[in-house]
Amino acid sequence: MIKTRFTEMFGVEHPIAQGGMQWVGTAELVSAVANAGALGFLTALTQPTPEALAKEIARCRTMTDKPFGVNLTILPTINPPPYAEYRAAIIESGVKAVETAGYKPEEHVTEFRKHGIKVIHKCTAVRHALSAERMGVDAISIDGFECAGHPGEDDIPGLILIPAAADKIKIPMLASGGFADGRGLVAALALGADGVNMGTRFCATKEAPLHDNFKQAMVANDERATDLIFRSFRNTARVARNAISQQVVELERGGAKFEDVSHLVKGTRGREGLDTGDTDMGIWSAGMVQGLIHDVPSVKELIERVIHEAEEIMYRRLANLRVVSKAAE
Amino acid sequence: MIKTRFTEMFGVEHPIAQGGMQWVGTAELVSAVANAGALGFLTALTQPTPEALAKEIARCRTMTDKPFGVNLTILPTINPPPYAEYRAAIIESGVKAVETAGYKPEEHVTEFRKHGIKVIHKCTAVRHALSAERMGVDAISIDGFECAGHPGEDDIPGLILIPAAADKIKIPMLASGGFADGRGLVAALALGADGVNMGTRFCATKEAPLHDNFKQAMVANDERATDLIFRSFRNTARVARNAISQQVVELERGGAKFEDVSHLVKGTRGREGLDTGDTDMGIWSAGMVQGLIHDVPSVKELIERVIHEAEEIMYRRLANLRVVSKAAE
Repeated sequence: MIKTRFTEMFGVEHPIAQGGMQWVGTAELVSAVANAGALGFLTALTQPTPEALAKEIARCRTMTDKPFGVNLTILPTINPPPYAEYRAAIIESGVKAVETAGYKPEEHVTEFRKHGIKVIHKCTAVRHALSAERMGVDAISIDGFECAGHPGEDDIPGLILIPAAADKIKIPMLASGGFADGRGLVAALALGADGVNMGTRFCATKEAPLHDNFKQAMVANDERATDLIFRSFRNTARVARNAISQQVVELERGGAKFEDVSHLVKGTRGREGLDTGDTDMGIWSAGMVQGLIHDVPSVKELIERVIHEAEEIMYRRLANLRVVSKAAE
Repeated sequence: MIKTRFTEMFGVEHPIAQGGMQWVGTAELVSAVANAGALGFLTALTQPTPEALAKEIARCRTMTDKPFGVNLTILPTINPPPYAEYRAAIIESGVKAVETAGYKPEEHVTEFRKHGIKVIHKCTAVRHALSAERMGVDAISIDGFECAGHPGEDDIPGLILIPAAADKIKIPMLASGGFADGRGLVAALALGADGVNMGTRFCATKEAPLHDNFKQAMVANDERATDLIFRSFRNTARVARNAISQQVVELERGGAKFEDVSHLVKGTRGREGLDTGDTDMGIWSAGMVQGLIHDVPSVKELIERVIHEAEEIMYRRLANLRVVSKAAE
């Protein structure tokens, strides 16, 4: 077992989180993560209404008696979902952990904390982490350039971003983006994090609610098989490379406007997309960590393997590198 | 002390290398690295002729009696320098370690190895590392997206690239790009490397032969203050951000041809550039690791600090995270 400020703060066994993932963060995956001793987050906006979210939280409770949380991602859209109502559903449910992400979370952070909920805020830059710390969040999840989904526009990988953030952030911090195994967990701990968040790796598990074709694609893909789309609109997203993502990249290179490409990414906007099993039908998120994913285990197998490998590295492999010099003997 | 396959193979105390750096890899820096127990490499092409290289190697010998090596970087230029003559100068000098980099090193690797010289090949992709291993090099230096200079065109950061390479490479491997401290060294070892190569970090030391203004710029700059230039020519280089690099990026974005921008980068092509102290006069290399550089120590202070911090992390901080479960007691 590996105990950190993260495991202490959130009352879980292992320093591993499964953060919010649109369409994938449902009770099936989150309860499996909870039962395996890590911290899973249901994705609020995957549920069509606040009422549906309340039901999903209740359903997850029937599947585990261990702690789990809810992710609330605030998107800068013209017609925003009813965030305050989703937030109320989360607070009323009695969930004790929330992951926030996106723009201007302050109002939500304040409300959650007022109700005794621990808030971990996910962000992609040291300055955003500092601003979240000032606004009173309990922990940070710092997300590097490697990640699936939105890496921001700075392109700073975890190897730099984690220690740069650790130099300035005082509250507990998870490292996110590029993590799949015990090697990564030890690296994150060495760089100054208190644990890791895994996304793509949890998508390639038996319990993740998406068609097996997507899981097998993540196993088959190497680390180079992702694309950055929407870079020219300063809303970059890392997605699995396929014919559609390549088409978007090519159109953006040619100076296309958002209206010219947005219709191309609508294919998998919804659960239906992930149920078809057609990995070429539209855009779907996957991180560079695909290159380190070689199988589709159960969540329990995965978490046990990550912890076991991390312990082997920390307490056996690294320990064996030590040479006590004559002078120090 | 930390002993790895790298320290064993190259007969040095510490798992740290200072690889080739144009204009900076001279006897002053390399001998300081050697005297501090790490492996420095003189940069062959920084010397105007093979004869000058032979003299520089001899000069370095007068400054240290510990092992050091020479870097030979093979560039795809129309009028190449006399590589075979530089190679002969290295072989005749009796140096026992060479770092190769660049295109088609096979002929050189074969010759060096025939003369009992250990060759470490620097590359930026798993497939290139595999190809170098097949061609018989003794070790790999795998260079991630974070690095100064040429990161290649795949943009895979060390957090992914190191374990992906470690999954396939059998010979010893250094991790390069993004390393500046003991946290990074432990992360590299955890991810499967046998040590780290540092570049930018060694440039910000007292012994590095460049004007103090450059060193102070690296201290002042954060991790975001780099630019990728020549991306549109598929010859990407990461450089410190300044007015010239921003101009190049802007011109490339507008579809500029190589002829339209190449004159802009000639400013610092030569030792003179680094002696002027004008950090805006042209393009100069620096990695994202600038964000982790906060001072200009001596090489000895730096190496001792990195090793001390790594030992503290491995044998104290990580060790203290361990909780032996009831079942295992």
